[in-house]
Amino acid sequence: MIAITHQNITEERISEIVKYIEKSGVQAHVSRGTDRTVIGIIGKAEPTLSEHLRQMKGVENVIKISKSYKLASRDFHPDDTIIDIKGVKIGGDNLVIMGGPCAVESPEQIDEIARLVKAAGGQVLRGGAFKPRTGPYSFQGVGVEGLKMMAEAGKKHGLLTITEVMTPEYVDVCAEYADILQVGTRNMQNFDLLRKLGTIQTPVLLKRGFSATYDEFLNAAEYILAGGNPNVMLCERGIRTFEQYTRNTLDLTAIPVLQDLSHLPVISDPSHGTGRRELVEPMSKASVAAGANGLIVEMHTDPDNSMTGDGVQSLFPDQFAALLKDLEKLAELVGKRFDTEKAPASAFETWKK
Amino acid sequence: MIAITHQNITEERISEIVKYIEKSGVQAHVSRGTDRTVIGIIGKAEPTLSEHLRQMKGVENVIKISKSYKLASRDFHPDDTIIDIKGVKIGGDNLVIMGGPCAVESPEQIDEIARLVKAAGGQVLRGGAFKPRTGPYSFQGVGVEGLKMMAEAGKKHGLLTITEVMTPEYVDVCAEYADILQVGTRNMQNFDLLRKLGTIQTPVLLKRGFSATYDEFLNAAEYILAGGNPNVMLCERGIRTFEQYTRNTLDLTAIPVLQDLSHLPVISDPSHGTGRRELVEPMSKASVAAGANGLIVEMHTDPDNSMTGDGVQSLFPDQFAALLKDLEKLAELVGKRFDTEKAPASAFETWKK
Amino acid sequence: MIAITHQNITEERISEIVKYIEKSGVQAHVSRGTDRTVIGIIGKAEPTLSEHLRQMKGVENVIKISKSYKLASRDFHPDDTIIDIKGVKIGGDNLVIMGGPCAVESPEQIDEIARLVKAAGGQVLRGGAFKPRTGPYSFQGVGVEGLKMMAEAGKKHGLLTITEVMTPEYVDVCAEYADILQVGTRNMQNFDLLRKLGTIQTPVLLKRGFSATYDEFLNAAEYILAGGNPNVMLCERGIRTFEQYTRNTLDLTAIPVLQDLSHLPVISDPSHGTGRRELVEPMSKASVAAGANGLIVEMHTDPDNSMTGDGVQSLFPDQFAALLKDLEKLAELVGKRFDTEKAPASAFETWKK
Amino acid sequence: MIAITHQNITEERISEIVKYIEKSGVQAHVSRGTDRTVIGIIGKAEPTLSEHLRQMKGVENVIKISKSYKLASRDFHPDDTIIDIKGVKIGGDNLVIMGGPCAVESPEQIDEIARLVKAAGGQVLRGGAFKPRTGPYSFQGVGVEGLKMMAEAGKKHGLLTITEVMTPEYVDVCAEYADILQVGTRNMQNFDLLRKLGTIQTPVLLKRGFSATYDEFLNAAEYILAGGNPNVMLCERGIRTFEQYTRNTLDLTAIPVLQDLSHLPVISDPSHGTGRRELVEPMSKASVAAGANGLIVEMHTDPDNSMTGDGVQSLFPDQFAALLKDLEKLAELVGKRFDTEKAPASAFETWKK
Repeated sequence: MIAITHQNITEERISEIVKYIEKSGVQAHVSRGTDRTVIGIIGKAEPTLSEHLRQMKGVENVIKISKSYKLASRDFHPDDTIIDIKGVKIGGDNLVIMGGPCAVESPEQIDEIARLVKAAGGQVLRGGAFKPRTGPYSFQGVGVEGLKMMAEAGKKHGLLTITEVMTPEYVDVCAEYADILQVGTRNMQNFDLLRKLGTIQTPVLLKRGFSATYDEFLNAAEYILAGGNPNVMLCERGIRTFEQYTRNTLDLTAIPVLQDLSHLPVISDPSHGTGRRELVEPMSKASVAAGANGLIVEMHTDPDNSMTGDGVQSLFPDQFAALLKDLEKLAELVGKRFDTEKAPASAFETWKK
Repeated sequence: MIAITHQNITEERISEIVKYIEKSGVQAHVSRGTDRTVIGIIGKAEPTLSEHLRQMKGVENVIKISKSYKLASRDFHPDDTIIDIKGVKIGGDNLVIMGGPCAVESPEQIDEIARLVKAAGGQVLRGGAFKPRTGPYSFQGVGVEGLKMMAEAGKKHGLLTITEVMTPEYVDVCAEYADILQVGTRNMQNFDLLRKLGTIQTPVLLKRGFSATYDEFLNAAEYILAGGNPNVMLCERGIRTFEQYTRNTLDLTAIPVLQDLSHLPVISDPSHGTGRRELVEPMSKASVAAGANGLIVEMHTDPDNSMTGDGVQSLFPDQFAALLKDLEKLAELVGKRFDTEKAPASAFETWKK
Repeated sequence: MIAITHQNITEERISEIVKYIEKSGVQAHVSRGTDRTVIGIIGKAEPTLSEHLRQMKGVENVIKISKSYKLASRDFHPDDTIIDIKGVKIGGDNLVIMGGPCAVESPEQIDEIARLVKAAGGQVLRGGAFKPRTGPYSFQGVGVEGLKMMAEAGKKHGLLTITEVMTPEYVDVCAEYADILQVGTRNMQNFDLLRKLGTIQTPVLLKRGFSATYDEFLNAAEYILAGGNPNVMLCERGIRTFEQYTRNTLDLTAIPVLQDLSHLPVISDPSHGTGRRELVEPMSKASVAAGANGLIVEMHTDPDNSMTGDGVQSLFPDQFAALLKDLEKLAELVGKRFDTEKAPASAFETWKK
Repeated sequence: MIAITHQNITEERISEIVKYIEKSGVQAHVSRGTDRTVIGIIGKAEPTLSEHLRQMKGVENVIKISKSYKLASRDFHPDDTIIDIKGVKIGGDNLVIMGGPCAVESPEQIDEIARLVKAAGGQVLRGGAFKPRTGPYSFQGVGVEGLKMMAEAGKKHGLLTITEVMTPEYVDVCAEYADILQVGTRNMQNFDLLRKLGTIQTPVLLKRGFSATYDEFLNAAEYILAGGNPNVMLCERGIRTFEQYTRNTLDLTAIPVLQDLSHLPVISDPSHGTGRRELVEPMSKASVAAGANGLIVEMHTDPDNSMTGDGVQSLFPDQFAALLKDLEKLAELVGKRFDTEKAPASAFETWKK
């Protein structure tokens, strides 16, 4: 950590700041420049020291050299985290594909989609039972019943399941039915939810807030890790920019950056990241080429009539199957494994758009 | 609502879309342009119709003409909402000033600050008992004890109190001690929290998410209003942009825009909106000149040692008092009333920075 | 300037970097932290040293402590720059109002508008002769003829004139007819244009690029100053954000920040900054309250039929006059002078919207 | 085009607006909704009609249904544009690789780099002779001499050349020496430059402004096309967002979107798009996987000492060669051809980082 002083600070004030720093058990190292004086702080400072320094008279800026997250950082955990869920490995050189509808709608719907996800080679069934919606008058999901329908469909077709949990009090019931819990973009900094997820061992897929920096994203993951749950996946799902043609701007650079800063698996969500069906295929391929550890993709048997209106970004079953076939070769090229069993294209004939 | 079709849509497909629209009880009005056909939807459509239309084959875009929020809209509530809390009026042509520390630290701290807020002419005491923090290792607030300290200080000095509530389960205890509940920027779309706040009558100050559009902001307010709580204030507190010199970019245009779109009071937060003490005074004045119904300003007796590190954006007591004096004349000029009793400048002598 | 090294840099590599730094005539000051080593660079380094250091192996980041602009910085020019143009003072505690149409359309149009600007109390007539347009098929301005019409109207009514110059080759002819040359937002980093403007003495109003940081903005001003032209005004005109309701997001915080970092006058443009007529009045007042040294405001006698389509953000003459009347009192309150002669409201009766 | 009226517009005003529309030779189609009335404009309207309508009293919003660019649009040019330069084809299913230093520094430097670009399989040599720099004190390029050095190196090693042109007056001399002219991100809306480039036939690589929307980008291309030069390539080079870890945020979604909206080739620039050498490889692969028609990549034999300081984002020659080898297989997988001759890895041994 470095404190940069104002241009015309007095020697006396510098001494006071140095004393203040040393009082907290770390060393101060003064370095006088032409314009400004820089004070280096050496040793393991309290997390609040930087905040206090920043507000002291005579201090113009405080720059952290070390990162504020530790458990999420690759500095202290050089090897990739690999999360093993019932034999499905997520992280390292494994490629995992999660597919399914935006929302669970009925037992028949989720069963049929599960069958198709499995046939296409996917390993995880996605589906929302509780839906976060911008306005209070939109469809809000079918609730706990949806969790049960999805659990059954997953079990029947040999798929893991993932579902979104929106509030601390629903963590336990969601964890009872689903293999992976998803934290949505609007909840990335719902700190009570993160803390609650730290108290269990169920793997968590944490979506990046649509305006979160990499640093904030990793600090959010740190909340879960610090609570005692090491099973965290990071998910890039698009950020908000000035561009309105796409729903969000998928930030694929996040993939290699997060993998460099952290040991956690990084999953890409090209469906929410673009909001347009025709962009899901190229951005899925680009994600894998950029090194993603997996994808979470929306697929629906009847996108025109999906209950959430997210059908516009859902693939048809035959598109999903064709994509996964292409991804197998692509994965190999970038050193990833995706050797799931896949049904022939003919199996998806009836589901052609 | 308007649906715009793809350039080369067939007449047959247009008929199907029209039938689909009419099936839901509203009228469709087809208008053929040179390149594209536009289908107007006339009547009160289900909120999900736009979502379904958007995902239909042949539909390129759906544009809403009416707003998705109703209760928050001035269209259906032309008069300003004025919230009366124990005789303090918020909204309309009243100017309300909320002042206090980022976090409640001790009974003495909050009592002394309350005395100074009152002496300066403020009407509401702000202070956090539960603090949302980016990283898990930062100071997280003193909890329910802080609520009690603040309630006592407010009562003693004749001030209303406002505090942040972060999770649905804490709404009741916060409402027991505070006069106004604040929803923080990271929780603007914590829909469970919003729904819970809709079930009580305690006034709510809803902060704009740091990347929320005006439309999303008003839809978040709609959640509270739709639940049955009409006492909502909107708070602009800065948005995230590419500029890093300030903590956020205070969007003062939000003030007249929100007042035009909605009847709810609009409060400005120049402390979080800038993150720098020296900018609080000019941006407070600019907020009032732009028509704000009030300000929420951080003030601390010992900013160098505030526990959250937000001291860097807190005014010293004498600065706070001088600002409120200036605001009185400015308010008059823009047709607002701020005729509180104010102690002479000499009362703040000992608190000079 | 500070160079931060990678975590596991060798002592040998540190020595090499230090040697490299000292070779360029400045001192290196090594400070070893727990995780990383920091190298302070002391003395007046070549501007390219930071760039070279940044790309050296072992260096993780380079942080500049001093600013890259000098002539624009208040550090080396503590007093406000006041530009005196034919007796009209811009900067310091003077408030200047520039008003007029987006584009000069005809001699009659600009003459009548000039008369109204003067009657309302404005000091400068704005008007575009060359228009930068996003698409090649839009109205591109009337050219040199427009310069002449505006010069004549300004002279007749006792107003200074300001017009936009888009390319180096037009600088001379624009300077022949106008008192102030404006650089548009899209040209803020048109470095050849900036260099050309540095070779003359005509005052320049430099508009901030719609995605430029404060630092880039001041560096652009530095180009003109470094060329030898000290008469530069900075103009905040709105930045691009995710919000689409307004054309841009007017960043009023830029006003006190730029005035703190620099000695140059800061002008606000609430017309382009909002793109909506009804927001011009509140944002003009907010700009003055925030400390702006002036405003540039669009006004048109027939906004419905303006040739550029920017009428939607133009005030009607009576609105313009009423605004300037209000600004006089507001200016006084924030320590600015705006004591121009103003015609009574009745003079604008015929121009009521 | 659609005009949406205010909620309480009178029938009389609607008639006036309709008359206004019909006066300009197109049809108006009125459609009355519950809240608002919508007026559809049918026929080929003047480009300025939308601007005029937008500013009329009673009109709340105008939405364009057709695009404002025509020549750049795929609507009117369904086949891919393929630009053939001395036998090198750019566009369609060809993959083109442009490589070289940020700036030409000396004949020896550019000759050696040209040799390495060719050996690695690249087809185009990039290099800047005129450099746009944020501050006036940075290295500004070697000028016309650099153009000559590059032309010679290109000729000797059988490479096309590309260089940036910054101002209309330098277009001719740049076109004399280089095969492709590049317009930098800061000049995307330097309309005089675009117009000048429309008067020649030399192919142009137009870089997206770092805050330009897709629509503005295509309108900028339209300027060149409308002037008569059909040889335009679009280049995505990263946009400005709130994220500061990378220099820009490379928007790979732009690739399939621009290819869908337009027939022009789309090139990706992962060097400027990320600003960090270690991200160039994954983002190059992701670009090709997303369907890019080519890449422009910085490569330098001595990145630590590049004169512009952009060495930090330049690949070492052996990294460049390894990347191109990988891209060959990847290109095949996504249906692109990149069958250039490549020297064995051993040829780059001496250039290992």
